[in-house]
Amino acid sequence: MKIGFVGLGAMGAAIAKNLVESGHEVRVFNRSPARAEPLRAVGASVATTPAEAARGAEIVFTMVSDDAALTAVTYGDDGILSGLAKGALHVSMSTIGVATSEALTAAHRDTHTGFVSAIVFGRPDAAAARKLFIMAAGADEHLKVAVPVLETLGQSVGIVGAEPAQANLVKLIGNFMLSVIVETMGEACAVAEKGGIDPSRLVELLTNASFNAPAYKIYGAMIAQQRFQPAGFSLPLCQKDNRLMLAAAETLAVPLPLASFVHDRFLAARARGAGPDHDLSALALCALSDAGLVRE
Amino acid sequence: MKIGFVGLGAMGAAIAKNLVESGHEVRVFNRSPARAEPLRAVGASVATTPAEAARGAEIVFTMVSDDAALTAVTYGDDGILSGLAKGALHVSMSTIGVATSEALTAAHRDTHTGFVSAIVFGRPDAAAARKLFIMAAGADEHLKVAVPVLETLGQSVGIVGAEPAQANLVKLIGNFMLSVIVETMGEACAVAEKGGIDPSRLVELLTNASFNAPAYKIYGAMIAQQRFQPAGFSLPLCQKDNRLMLAAAETLAVPLPLASFVHDRFLAARARGAGPDHDLSALALCALSDAGLVRE
Amino acid sequence: MKIGFVGLGAMGAAIAKNLVESGHEVRVFNRSPARAEPLRAVGASVATTPAEAARGAEIVFTMVSDDAALTAVTYGDDGILSGLAKGALHVSMSTIGVATSEALTAAHRDTHTGFVSAIVFGRPDAAAARKLFIMAAGADEHLKVAVPVLETLGQSVGIVGAEPAQANLVKLIGNFMLSVIVETMGEACAVAEKGGIDPSRLVELLTNASFNAPAYKIYGAMIAQQRFQPAGFSLPLCQKDNRLMLAAAETLAVPLPLASFVHDRFLAARARGAGPDHDLSALALCALSDAGLVRE
Amino acid sequence: MKIGFVGLGAMGAAIAKNLVESGHEVRVFNRSPARAEPLRAVGASVATTPAEAARGAEIVFTMVSDDAALTAVTYGDDGILSGLAKGALHVSMSTIGVATSEALTAAHRDTHTGFVSAIVFGRPDAAAARKLFIMAAGADEHLKVAVPVLETLGQSVGIVGAEPAQANLVKLIGNFMLSVIVETMGEACAVAEKGGIDPSRLVELLTNASFNAPAYKIYGAMIAQQRFQPAGFSLPLCQKDNRLMLAAAETLAVPLPLASFVHDRFLAARARGAGPDHDLSALALCALSDAGLVRE
Repeated sequence: MKIGFVGLGAMGAAIAKNLVESGHEVRVFNRSPARAEPLRAVGASVATTPAEAARGAEIVFTMVSDDAALTAVTYGDDGILSGLAKGALHVSMSTIGVATSEALTAAHRDTHTGFVSAIVFGRPDAAAARKLFIMAAGADEHLKVAVPVLETLGQSVGIVGAEPAQANLVKLIGNFMLSVIVETMGEACAVAEKGGIDPSRLVELLTNASFNAPAYKIYGAMIAQQRFQPAGFSLPLCQKDNRLMLAAAETLAVPLPLASFVHDRFLAARARGAGPDHDLSALALCALSDAGLVRE
Repeated sequence: MKIGFVGLGAMGAAIAKNLVESGHEVRVFNRSPARAEPLRAVGASVATTPAEAARGAEIVFTMVSDDAALTAVTYGDDGILSGLAKGALHVSMSTIGVATSEALTAAHRDTHTGFVSAIVFGRPDAAAARKLFIMAAGADEHLKVAVPVLETLGQSVGIVGAEPAQANLVKLIGNFMLSVIVETMGEACAVAEKGGIDPSRLVELLTNASFNAPAYKIYGAMIAQQRFQPAGFSLPLCQKDNRLMLAAAETLAVPLPLASFVHDRFLAARARGAGPDHDLSALALCALSDAGLVRE
Repeated sequence: MKIGFVGLGAMGAAIAKNLVESGHEVRVFNRSPARAEPLRAVGASVATTPAEAARGAEIVFTMVSDDAALTAVTYGDDGILSGLAKGALHVSMSTIGVATSEALTAAHRDTHTGFVSAIVFGRPDAAAARKLFIMAAGADEHLKVAVPVLETLGQSVGIVGAEPAQANLVKLIGNFMLSVIVETMGEACAVAEKGGIDPSRLVELLTNASFNAPAYKIYGAMIAQQRFQPAGFSLPLCQKDNRLMLAAAETLAVPLPLASFVHDRFLAARARGAGPDHDLSALALCALSDAGLVRE
Repeated sequence: MKIGFVGLGAMGAAIAKNLVESGHEVRVFNRSPARAEPLRAVGASVATTPAEAARGAEIVFTMVSDDAALTAVTYGDDGILSGLAKGALHVSMSTIGVATSEALTAAHRDTHTGFVSAIVFGRPDAAAARKLFIMAAGADEHLKVAVPVLETLGQSVGIVGAEPAQANLVKLIGNFMLSVIVETMGEACAVAEKGGIDPSRLVELLTNASFNAPAYKIYGAMIAQQRFQPAGFSLPLCQKDNRLMLAAAETLAVPLPLASFVHDRFLAARARGAGPDHDLSALALCALSDAGLVRE
């Protein structure tokens, strides 16, 4: 299949490589061209604009950092929509807001192209190993085309619904749940430590029992050791998702007190010196600091 | 081994039966004697007081509903301490507060008996199937006696530390984490539903991906369906544990904002009509109601 | 003085009328022209565009509902900036966001006009009686012109600083404080009522003692009586201010947990049926409802 | 009138002195006797037990630090109840919990003595100047005796209701409101300071406008200057009242999210080093610290 791929960060590069290795004819684009070279080395061709990556493709995938980046590569003279043929498909894998997704859905409908949101849970190593959990939403006719390709990229593809934005909402909910887990483990480790229990032992005990979701283990271990760097999931990126979640919830008139609380923790973590080099786990700095436990 | 067992609720009865079936000589006590009959039927003897259950036993187990019940069966003329021989062991499996546990530890030390806290994660069916996760804390010499028996009652026995109260704190932390999961799923289902996503589908998608801890599945499904009865883990019992968690954290000078928030949810759930017949999942009534979603 | 006045809602009309009655030559503009007629009747002239209101004026005042409205009357061919002479002054009295105020400051600087934010505390009756509390910020040279006129419009004019946006921030802080007072009185009335104390009596006792700020009296009485209509300060308008406060605080990296909490209350109040016809006091519906106290 | 007075802290001493100066025959008791000497100097007699202070008195007043202290001076062989004549009155001015007040009410009824709660708002200087706001609750027949005396001690005496505990609840509500004001001003000063506004100027502007309740001025000024010592209203004393408020609200099934939030702030302030020498204003350390603003 002729495939375009826009956005070669750690996640995008791993997915694009898998598409090449599956035998697809892949043309890639990345804003900073150096990141395209490893893909060229494995057999992809390299476009100089998103439009060029989209031209002639049956599907163009995008995996970029935020709403602004996706908007930038989609619209305008050099954008995907100016290259994508009628009837072809844009599969958006980025974590973006509900309103942006709805606007993109409308813009593609207007240009007689298809738009599918196919969000992913998993980190770059899971992407490389085709172990992502993928959740897709879009019109049936578009899913029919996208899903078989998506199934080669992860361990499962769940269908959320007919509106692309619904998949984006699920992704935001998932990241909201992650942030709550981090806060929970921060509070749990704080009270354990002051109660005389080694927090690493606490995490080990609980995650060997029924709190066995990976996030409890991964973030629990980092928090217990007060290891907040390097950034696996960068703090400001997750803060952005918190912002998108709150915006979507406000539009839907749904109070999310836990998300509001986490919003404040993101700001307080920043005041405590956590920045782009810090992992989401650094959110727990607040709970630890409030208990007088932060080790310098 | 000669074993006493006090407290034959759903959990206690299942554990006591396993002890009988393992070949121990078990003498049981329960405040309302009718619940002792099924144990007599499988071979246990029945005591008329906790002291009598403890007399002659190498270990007396207790599995009762709260601090007051444990205090009542331990102290006084008819209490465990008046029957338990010097050098014998009291293994407390109840979910109780840190301060009560510390007081019991001291009282047993004063009477030259041993006290071990061995708390459990799992429900009655897990207890019956010897699938509990057990976490124990106490002096080494007491753990040496208790752990081999505990290992026959669950799938794992984790050692928390040398102070019995530490195991109780871990249990309270675990139940705190459960309550946060329920609140999280309440908010998640609320925003999903108003975003056009069937909440049951949301739960299915997320728990088939990386949010795969059993509590997400169990409570998520109940919340998605607004099924808050019957009570698996009764709302007031879990509220009691929230109270014990906040009390322990206050003594340790650890703010637990998530626990404080959940404290308010328990009270609001009560105002919305949830009571002893409601499951912990009914905590989510608040998030759903605040979004205008509660179905009558 | 030749004065333009844009925005003739309840507040704007009262202020504009005072300017006319002070002997200034006032030309007014309002989007819906009917509201200009009462001003014409007392001696103002009526412009058909904001630009026309600004043309020839030494000062043009604006008092509109939100950032979008102020932006709309300021920019564009018909906007204030296209009519305002070099060296003349725009005194903005609206409650707007910090970022919008900063953008307006820059735009006026670029066109060699002056921009002053002069926000007000007080309701329309206070405006009519020249009893407003006014707080102004801007460059000294601009304040020198604006303050003498402002002093005729209220009981005091406080100078906040040299950046117009600082006055806007003070207004947002004030409205944030109001919203916290409403929530506080909601919780206070709820616990009093369930404790057997008539909430109106509670409010009377506390506000006759040291809790004597007007907001405690006004909102306290409304909440005690569960009287949430008509809207003095409309719920969605105050929700807008909460949004602006949170946005400003996020930019400044300041967590405002009380504002975040109130944000959720606004959403929950909406889910309980409160809308534009409801007063800010309706925020207390949440505290009352969470205690099972809302009377239908 | 023959009056007993138990508890000669700063408040109690000022009130007792006023009673002496009004011509009453006053017999005082204080746990540490040195504090009784200044009262002896102005004409009071000094008792060696609370019972002795109560013996022969028509009214015995108590003004002690907490529930435990009041319980200690009331019950037992040396306690007020063992000295107080049938038909005589105990007027309790301490800030105590609802449950303790209810228990005391019952105990006095059982001994055919009267019990009135007469709580006060105001500090020691207000007590000395007979400027307290007093709020009393109790049976009509007891209020008839107590109120005329109380009226000489403050600027007003408000009647709350027939149950003494209702006055205690009003006092707890008032202190809850104070704590929210402190948190509010902490957040307000934090966002102002990072927005370039001198927080002292902010407080001055707002309290000269409609936020003119004394607590805004007093606590606002302290917070703006980060002046948290010496303790006017000691942090742990106010934390005790927060605890009593939450306990009363839990019994009444009323969620008080602001009080819960403040509860966490008390604990975090402690972790930041605030203790008995710190004023309630130190609660704002948390908001300032979360914004990165605490000056060492």
